[in-house]
Amino acid sequence: MNYKQILTNIHREVSALKNTGEVASYIPELAKVDKDHFGIYLNNIHGDNFEAGDADVTFSIQSISKVFSLAMAFANQGNKLWERVDVEPSGNPFNYLSLLEREKGIPRNPLINSGAIVVADCLVSTLKNPKEDFLQFVRDLANDQSINFDKNVVASEKKTGFRNYAIANLLKSFDNLHNSVEDVLDFYFHQCAIAMNCKQLSNAFFAFANRGKCMQNNTPIKPNQAKRINAIMLTCGFYDEAGEFAFEVGLPGKSGVGGGIVALLPNEYVITTWSPALNEKGNSYYGMQALERFTTETNSSIF
Amino acid sequence: MNYKQILTNIHREVSALKNTGEVASYIPELAKVDKDHFGIYLNNIHGDNFEAGDADVTFSIQSISKVFSLAMAFANQGNKLWERVDVEPSGNPFNYLSLLEREKGIPRNPLINSGAIVVADCLVSTLKNPKEDFLQFVRDLANDQSINFDKNVVASEKKTGFRNYAIANLLKSFDNLHNSVEDVLDFYFHQCAIAMNCKQLSNAFFAFANRGKCMQNNTPIKPNQAKRINAIMLTCGFYDEAGEFAFEVGLPGKSGVGGGIVALLPNEYVITTWSPALNEKGNSYYGMQALERFTTETNSSIF
Amino acid sequence: MNYKQILTNIHREVSALKNTGEVASYIPELAKVDKDHFGIYLNNIHGDNFEAGDADVTFSIQSISKVFSLAMAFANQGNKLWERVDVEPSGNPFNYLSLLEREKGIPRNPLINSGAIVVADCLVSTLKNPKEDFLQFVRDLANDQSINFDKNVVASEKKTGFRNYAIANLLKSFDNLHNSVEDVLDFYFHQCAIAMNCKQLSNAFFAFANRGKCMQNNTPIKPNQAKRINAIMLTCGFYDEAGEFAFEVGLPGKSGVGGGIVALLPNEYVITTWSPALNEKGNSYYGMQALERFTTETNSSIF
Amino acid sequence: MNYKQILTNIHREVSALKNTGEVASYIPELAKVDKDHFGIYLNNIHGDNFEAGDADVTFSIQSISKVFSLAMAFANQGNKLWERVDVEPSGNPFNYLSLLEREKGIPRNPLINSGAIVVADCLVSTLKNPKEDFLQFVRDLANDQSINFDKNVVASEKKTGFRNYAIANLLKSFDNLHNSVEDVLDFYFHQCAIAMNCKQLSNAFFAFANRGKCMQNNTPIKPNQAKRINAIMLTCGFYDEAGEFAFEVGLPGKSGVGGGIVALLPNEYVITTWSPALNEKGNSYYGMQALERFTTETNSSIF
Repeated sequence: MNYKQILTNIHREVSALKNTGEVASYIPELAKVDKDHFGIYLNNIHGDNFEAGDADVTFSIQSISKVFSLAMAFANQGNKLWERVDVEPSGNPFNYLSLLEREKGIPRNPLINSGAIVVADCLVSTLKNPKEDFLQFVRDLANDQSINFDKNVVASEKKTGFRNYAIANLLKSFDNLHNSVEDVLDFYFHQCAIAMNCKQLSNAFFAFANRGKCMQNNTPIKPNQAKRINAIMLTCGFYDEAGEFAFEVGLPGKSGVGGGIVALLPNEYVITTWSPALNEKGNSYYGMQALERFTTETNSSIF
Repeated sequence: MNYKQILTNIHREVSALKNTGEVASYIPELAKVDKDHFGIYLNNIHGDNFEAGDADVTFSIQSISKVFSLAMAFANQGNKLWERVDVEPSGNPFNYLSLLEREKGIPRNPLINSGAIVVADCLVSTLKNPKEDFLQFVRDLANDQSINFDKNVVASEKKTGFRNYAIANLLKSFDNLHNSVEDVLDFYFHQCAIAMNCKQLSNAFFAFANRGKCMQNNTPIKPNQAKRINAIMLTCGFYDEAGEFAFEVGLPGKSGVGGGIVALLPNEYVITTWSPALNEKGNSYYGMQALERFTTETNSSIF
Repeated sequence: MNYKQILTNIHREVSALKNTGEVASYIPELAKVDKDHFGIYLNNIHGDNFEAGDADVTFSIQSISKVFSLAMAFANQGNKLWERVDVEPSGNPFNYLSLLEREKGIPRNPLINSGAIVVADCLVSTLKNPKEDFLQFVRDLANDQSINFDKNVVASEKKTGFRNYAIANLLKSFDNLHNSVEDVLDFYFHQCAIAMNCKQLSNAFFAFANRGKCMQNNTPIKPNQAKRINAIMLTCGFYDEAGEFAFEVGLPGKSGVGGGIVALLPNEYVITTWSPALNEKGNSYYGMQALERFTTETNSSIF
Repeated sequence: MNYKQILTNIHREVSALKNTGEVASYIPELAKVDKDHFGIYLNNIHGDNFEAGDADVTFSIQSISKVFSLAMAFANQGNKLWERVDVEPSGNPFNYLSLLEREKGIPRNPLINSGAIVVADCLVSTLKNPKEDFLQFVRDLANDQSINFDKNVVASEKKTGFRNYAIANLLKSFDNLHNSVEDVLDFYFHQCAIAMNCKQLSNAFFAFANRGKCMQNNTPIKPNQAKRINAIMLTCGFYDEAGEFAFEVGLPGKSGVGGGIVALLPNEYVITTWSPALNEKGNSYYGMQALERFTTETNSSIF
């Protein structure tokens, strides 16, 4: 498979499309990003890698970080984690608070905000230096010690993240938040504000494509945990477009409002795209286009 | 009508019923109140008044305060108020957050928590010394300068009122809270923590039965505002038991989780009951019993 | 009070407003009605009556019939009726099916479709000749034996009333419909398709303003039942505009998609308006305008 | 892999578990089935097959038939099908009618009742002899001309399927049902009432594991359609336990209230289990146990 050629072609074709998406504006700091960025990076199980466009420009990983926090908490706590968060798709696009209320404070899954905030609470409870330890976990997964938080994004989100404050307080009212709202959201806003590029993300997700093992390092993620995290990504990774992504792309993956998407074919490869303009469901417009074309052309799918 | 005799009989009969209700425990300070208190007070348009039982023991008025804040904001702002809060019954018992989310941050009515928090925000914006000015407004309505906040209840609610923090943050995320969450909830927790007895409440509600005029003082409440506040009490004053109250009792009124209920027959009388044990819908069990008997025996109803 | 002059003035003023409403089209037969009709009729407790405009043109009473069926079932069964239908406002404008599903087949109140279908089921179970007996009940209330079903409207609704078929089947699945869907809906479509004019409706509602007694005949409606039916009209008579109607008009009442509205001041009068063009909530646009003006000018309200 | 030995062991181990599930009773005819039946059948891509227990006792396939009707409609109409039904998980366990109402008559996916009824409507519109043609399609997929409808189950469901009548009428009210409710449900009740055994089901699903090709026959299912149907099975095949199944078992599959479950590993095998007692989510209790053990022991998963 000539991945280099395929990525180059797709990058060219998709770049030629009118970019109808919009850069996320609800976090003011994210709204400053140039809409025209577009990068792709693929690394396969054999150690090869291929790129096209802005694959080494860093961006805010946002919700993609939920996979890292899930992996760390799952590795730490094992199946005890599932007493506080479920593994079902949320179905409802808009009303995560409503669902949370109906289901008495047990979030639908760890990849929506409410679930990720519960996972963050678990990490705040169990880690010695929560933010530092989590950052180190991500650096080790990516084998890159230069990865860091973007403090401007943290500050921006703290000032405007009222919906997340609402969620955390609602969780607290249901006794499903053990630390203070402030401590948990400080951690959560930091995890979302990690800045990475396509290459670093692809490297960090390698473990999920490779039964829990990094290319270079050991990780605490067990093979059957990697498998299950992939299952959760497939059913819950794209909000209310999860079914559509499974249907059109056919790979486990996770998107973020910073415009990044990571997807993977177990035992084969990880592919990361980045383009900040989002479609109406909140997923990168160019990224979705690129991934659909990629899996069609390479005829790769878990199905 | 021999009100004295009627109140005495009802007090005796209802006191003989097994009190199946439970004292509200979600605000720890309220849980300390003795379940056996039971008072009734009636004052009529002619200046007579009648009482039975613990009519002069003060208690936390809680949600009954929402009628006072509504009256003050309506008097201050007129119909502009209705741009930020609706006047429809909420229907849904449990999920005020869900409704608020579905309806994009416009609360259903000013007598549910979300609506009362918006009203509180209006008062924080327009009053010079919000808490003091509001307290003075209530004192003047009741013609009693001894009325005050119960600081222990304020402190208790600040520590545990996570659901109200969730609501205020959700309102903020919809741009329907103009002041900070902290400032608005500080005001709101104070308004709910006013301590009054049955007599003071009956006196303070006199204006709503009397086209906006107190017995002694003038008020800023216009006749047609008093009329409309009564309409809102009738359709929205008892959460998801509003229809039941209209059906069984047939008067505008408002209940609070402290166990108080105030009801009124326009141009006739105000009646206040207090008994802290609540039925499953959150309304005083003895109070509901007493009011049903009272309107049946006196054959009084707005219908 | 010079009712004649007031009605004439209001009729003229409201007729001068641009009629922004739309005639209901979901029942094809109703869509044929001329949008420009506009009638008002008032009869008071003293036996006087006054009219303006098209007060004697008949129209399809539609949901107004729910008050008649409720009154007949309540008179027949007493409080047993409330085991199968509640008395709470529905709150949710659009999704009565959803509410019905959430609440396990117990409709919110007898004035929404699901509740009225349960009431219809009760009448089908207890009446000897359900349709004939019900029609006779309405004729007797109105003291007018010429009132009849409009068979074209019945046929039109049978062909297109899929949502009502859905509701009836859902009730059946919850065991809250004892007769066949076909029999109950045949009755229900007939009750809604009764044709009456403003005068006949005002006469028929006289009993609700007069503690259960007609002007000429006795009725089986007890005084406390009339009172309770008025309470239900106030809290539930205007779908999701019930709070607004209580707030602006301040009277118990009921509207129908045929463009009729009946409202009443207990112990005083009944007023009926008819204009077929509906506002976006499904209530007659001219009718709502006329009633707001009327209660403001006469300063009449139950509050 | 010694499939024979594995199946035998699992059958023995699971049979030893206390069978806590309950046979579905809402279709009276299904309630008659003996709770103790338990069969497993596996056929792989190389033409081998293995069985344990009651693998050749026929049962009512119920919702498993939705995969067949989806495949037939998708093959017939291509992507036009998705204008009338979505591909997203439903999330909400209980309230499919509510969701349908909120989303204006577009069902969430073709594997919940509302979606399958829309698919049935498509087949009624396009097939010459809908029931016969559909049965032939299933017979050809399974390469077994003896497969047939169970007329008793059809009759039982026609008499008691009120919820399905409600759904069909609601779809009709949203103009998303083109044929009559009676015609569509007659087809739908027949498709659900097909009787098959584990062996026949495994053979019929072979095409989905084998890129659209049967072992013996050609089918109209294209490779990329088979892939997409598998994606829908994974995200939507188990109602509100879809995430759990993906998480624990990790294979696309579909369950039915008759107690059958079919699951498949693309390009490898199909495995069918049958045991009529259901867990509280409506999936076969023994079947879920058996499949979890099977994928754990064989270490097979799409993830």
